[in-house]
This record gives sequence, structure tokens and C-alpha cells, in this order.
Amino acid sequence: MAAWAERLSGVRGVLLDISGVLYDSGTGGGAAIAGSVEAVARLKRSPLKVRFCTNESQKSRRELVGVLQRLGFDISEGEVTAPAPATCQILKERGLRPHLLIHEGVRSEFDDIDMSNPNCVVIADAGEGFSYQNMNRAFQVLMELENPVLISLGKGRYYKETSGLMLDVGGYMKALEYACGIEAEVVGKPSPEFFRSALQAIGVEAHQAIMIGDDIVGDVGGAQQCGMRALQVRTGKFSPQTQEIAASTSLCREHRESQSHPSKRPGDEHHPEVRADGYVDNLAEAVDLLLQHMDK
Amino acid sequence: MAAWAERLSGVRGVLLDISGVLYDSGTGGGAAIAGSVEAVARLKRSPLKVRFCTNESQKSRRELVGVLQRLGFDISEGEVTAPAPATCQILKERGLRPHLLIHEGVRSEFDDIDMSNPNCVVIADAGEGFSYQNMNRAFQVLMELENPVLISLGKGRYYKETSGLMLDVGGYMKALEYACGIEAEVVGKPSPEFFRSALQAIGVEAHQAIMIGDDIVGDVGGAQQCGMRALQVRTGKFSPQTQEIAASTSLCREHRESQSHPSKRPGDEHHPEVRADGYVDNLAEAVDLLLQHMDK
Repeated sequence: MAAWAERLSGVRGVLLDISGVLYDSGTGGGAAIAGSVEAVARLKRSPLKVRFCTNESQKSRRELVGVLQRLGFDISEGEVTAPAPATCQILKERGLRPHLLIHEGVRSEFDDIDMSNPNCVVIADAGEGFSYQNMNRAFQVLMELENPVLISLGKGRYYKETSGLMLDVGGYMKALEYACGIEAEVVGKPSPEFFRSALQAIGVEAHQAIMIGDDIVGDVGGAQQCGMRALQVRTGKFSPQTQEIAASTSLCREHRESQSHPSKRPGDEHHPEVRADGYVDNLAEAVDLLLQHMDK
Repeated sequence: MAAWAERLSGVRGVLLDISGVLYDSGTGGGAAIAGSVEAVARLKRSPLKVRFCTNESQKSRRELVGVLQRLGFDISEGEVTAPAPATCQILKERGLRPHLLIHEGVRSEFDDIDMSNPNCVVIADAGEGFSYQNMNRAFQVLMELENPVLISLGKGRYYKETSGLMLDVGGYMKALEYACGIEAEVVGKPSPEFFRSALQAIGVEAHQAIMIGDDIVGDVGGAQQCGMRALQVRTGKFSPQTQEIAASTSLCREHRESQSHPSKRPGDEHHPEVRADGYVDNLAEAVDLLLQHMDK
């Protein structure tokens, strides 16, 4: 692999994933990842443009930013690209009136959306809200539509809370797709439109930008498909605890099964299709490298 | 299409789906489909062998048979091929100890199964039991296994209760497959092993047998792949009320989209890949035809 100087050459803007990079969510507000508060502060003091790009769909941006500020992060609502506001824009543009299957925490983002006589379903990480009754209601709404539209805020498989791995919205999206015989529209990473809107907000071209995330598919693969570079951190989804599990199942399965001696190994650096432009232990190391190799 | 006499020639055994053919399940025990009680009685008085072949996984066979007997059907536990007992046999043969995500009603079928220290997950139509917490627990069990095994009792997309369409186990199976990056093993229709075990129980060869069901994929397609013939009834999943919905979504989507003037139309008789050996209004008509054209 080329030297870091070459790999990071010409970077002017940085997109930061939030969950798993800045902090691990969970009960009591979650916990900041060691070194990340200071790393964000250093980035913001540097000449690099910074934007936060998250698939968080359990909390409104206001609530999310509140949690992060309490953990010590320098972050404001206007700096965050998130799926719920992006979805609201799509709903308005296309005259769609959603039936919502979402977490109560994000409902306020939809306050000015017409929800009478629904002609689509919007699904997000509803957590405990993914009851059978709520899923069945969303299913019935879709089945009653002549042209069923299902919009999913992200399609993550799982995420890590302080208490362990948690099912994300992706599986529930797949459940509705299968039951209704339809395909969902995904708003959020890895959708190129979503990355582009984050880049537009900071006026940086894709080839001048780098994404830092813990998800090899949603963050790294998505950003690269959009023409950006991407670093994967070994925190969050791929922290040591998670790595052991991931090594034996999940994204790594195809790789593992092709090995004669499957072994527990760090992170997800052997994904069969996606290869990051670099792997770092955490955001602090990523920022060290970026500031060190930034064009002066 | 050939005359009925030709299509039904040489039939010696009949496999009957239960839900949607004998009765529509629902609150208060559900309701018999008009003519079905008498049709089953006539079949049993005929020289044809009869077996019930169901993907019912919310109720034990004992409970299911009790419901049907109260509706007037001549049926006993020993005449029913169902996924739960077939799964128990697989678990024993392979030394698998399941974590169960199933409906309370079917739990008694697993009474003599070792469930300590689970090394697989068994999922069935759990209905309200498909809470986020229960799904997440099943997900976590799978993620902790080195060789995760997920067994699904059927993979139905939805079924019809007296109160409307209900999500079946298939979507939830897809959710776990996606989240864990694995593929489930399906026990029940349309699995060929499952049809074969039903045929073995009545000593009838596949080419001498006919399946009668309301599901074009699970019943008709599955039986045909197994070398049987199959009739689709226009009751249950494809009763008039459901047909209108199905015509605009679901299994019929591919067909509908290829039409310049999509229109509501009966049943699912235009599935892009599966074609039944005959379509009948209900079980009573199927039995009329079978008895009329039976080899004397």
C-alpha cells in the first residue's frame, strides 16, 4: 500500500461518522471513544473542512447533538447530515405522505410533514418500536397501495451499543421488502446522493474529501463509490470485542470460509469486496495522520 | 390446457394445505371455508389417500387439530405433516440445541428437546412474539456462534386471518439472514424433503400425488418441484378480498408491470414462474373434479 503521504494527498474536507467513531451509543447517553473529543477539536482548529455524516435515525439531530455536547464534543446541529431531514426533503418534493415506523426520538424531524391518508411507508431504526403490531401495520399500508413506496433511513445490519450488538433497520427493511415483494429506497449511507449532500454542505469535491467510519460497507464502500477516499477505524462496530464476533460470522463469512484455517483476526480488513484507503485504530490516529500529511 | 381427465389421471393420493384451504385462521378459532368440511369428508370416504400438509407453526398439531375438529373437520393429529415435529427430528439427528423464537402455542412440540447452551436458532411464526427484544436476542445468539445455524419453519411472506393479511415468518427469517450474513435452512413447504415426508406417510409416489393449496409458491411450486401435480384454490390467501390487493402488489408485481393496462384480476394465476396444473374456486370444486376423474 502506498505511503500515507500519497494516500492522503490533496484532502481538503473530512466526513466523520458519529456512532462508533465519536462515541458508542447506549443507555445513559453512551460513552465517548477515547481520544475522539480532542480529535474533533483538533480537526476543527485545522484548515480542513469538517462535516458529520450519520445514519443515526433513533434521535433527532437536536437530541443527538445534545448527547454529544454533553460528552464534550464541539458539534452543532447545522454541521450534521442525517437521513431524517434528507427524507423530509424527498417526501415534500414527491408529494409523499408517510406512514412512519420510526423511533419516538426522531419523530420531531417530521413535524411539518403531512401524514394524512398515507401513500408511502418510512422506516427507520425504531428499536423497541419494531413490534409485530407496528411491522404488520406498515406491511398492511404497503399492501393496500397501488404503487407501494418504502423509504428506509439507512440499511445497517447492526450497531454496537455499550450493552452489545443491536439489530439495525436493515433487517426490518428486508423483512418488508420480502413480504411485499418490493424494493426499498435507502436514504442515508451508502447512498451516493447522501454523501453528495454532505459534501455540498461544506463545498468540497469528492476527490478532495475523505470519510472516516467504522462500517466497511456503509461508510467505506459508500464513500469510495462516490469518488471519495475512506479510512476505517477499529472502534465501534469493529472494536476488539466486536471483532472476535465479526471474524466468525457476518461480513467476513465469505472470506473466512475460503481460509483453510479460519482464525479470529482484527476488524473487518479482509472484506471480500471493499478495501479502505487505510485502517487506523481510532479517530485520534486518523486525525494525527491527516494533520501530519495535510498539504501545507 | 389439457382436459381435467388427463390432468388428474393416475392420482392416488392428495395432500391438503390447511390454512386458506380448510379454514381461515383468526380470533375465536377462525372460520371454515364454505364446502370444505364436507369436501374433506368426501375425500376420506373415497379410495384416495389423504394427508394434511401445513406450514402452521403457531399451534401444536394437537391444538390445530382441536380447532379444526371444533369446526367440524374429520382430522386427527397423526394425519398432519407439520414443520415443528420435522424440525425436532432434525435437531436430534444433528445434535442441535435450539434457542427458540416461536409462538407459545407450538412450544409443547419441543418439550423433549435439549435447549441448554444453544448452538442454533429456530424461528417460526411467532406473531406478537416477534418483538424487537426477542429478535435481537436471536440475532445475538447467532452472532456468538462460530458456525451459526438458523432453521426457519416455513418462509411464508404473509397469510390471511379473518381480520386481514398478517406478516408470516419469512420476513423475519430474511431479517436475521441479512443482519447475520447467513442463509437459513427452511423446514416446511416448499422444501422437497418436507413434501416427501408427507408422501411417505401415506405410501404414495410423487407422480401419483396432487397437492391442493392457496399459495402459488409454497404449495404449487414446491409440490411440482417435487414431482407432484398441484391445484391452486381461490380461497385463503387468494380469496376475492385478497386478490385485489395481490393484483396490485406482491407476487404479481412482475406480471403487472409488464402490462400496459394493469387491472385487478382474480387470484395469482399469472405468476411469472409457477403455473398450477389447475385452478379451482375452492376445495369443494377440487374434490368434485378429483372424484369425477379418479381412475375407477
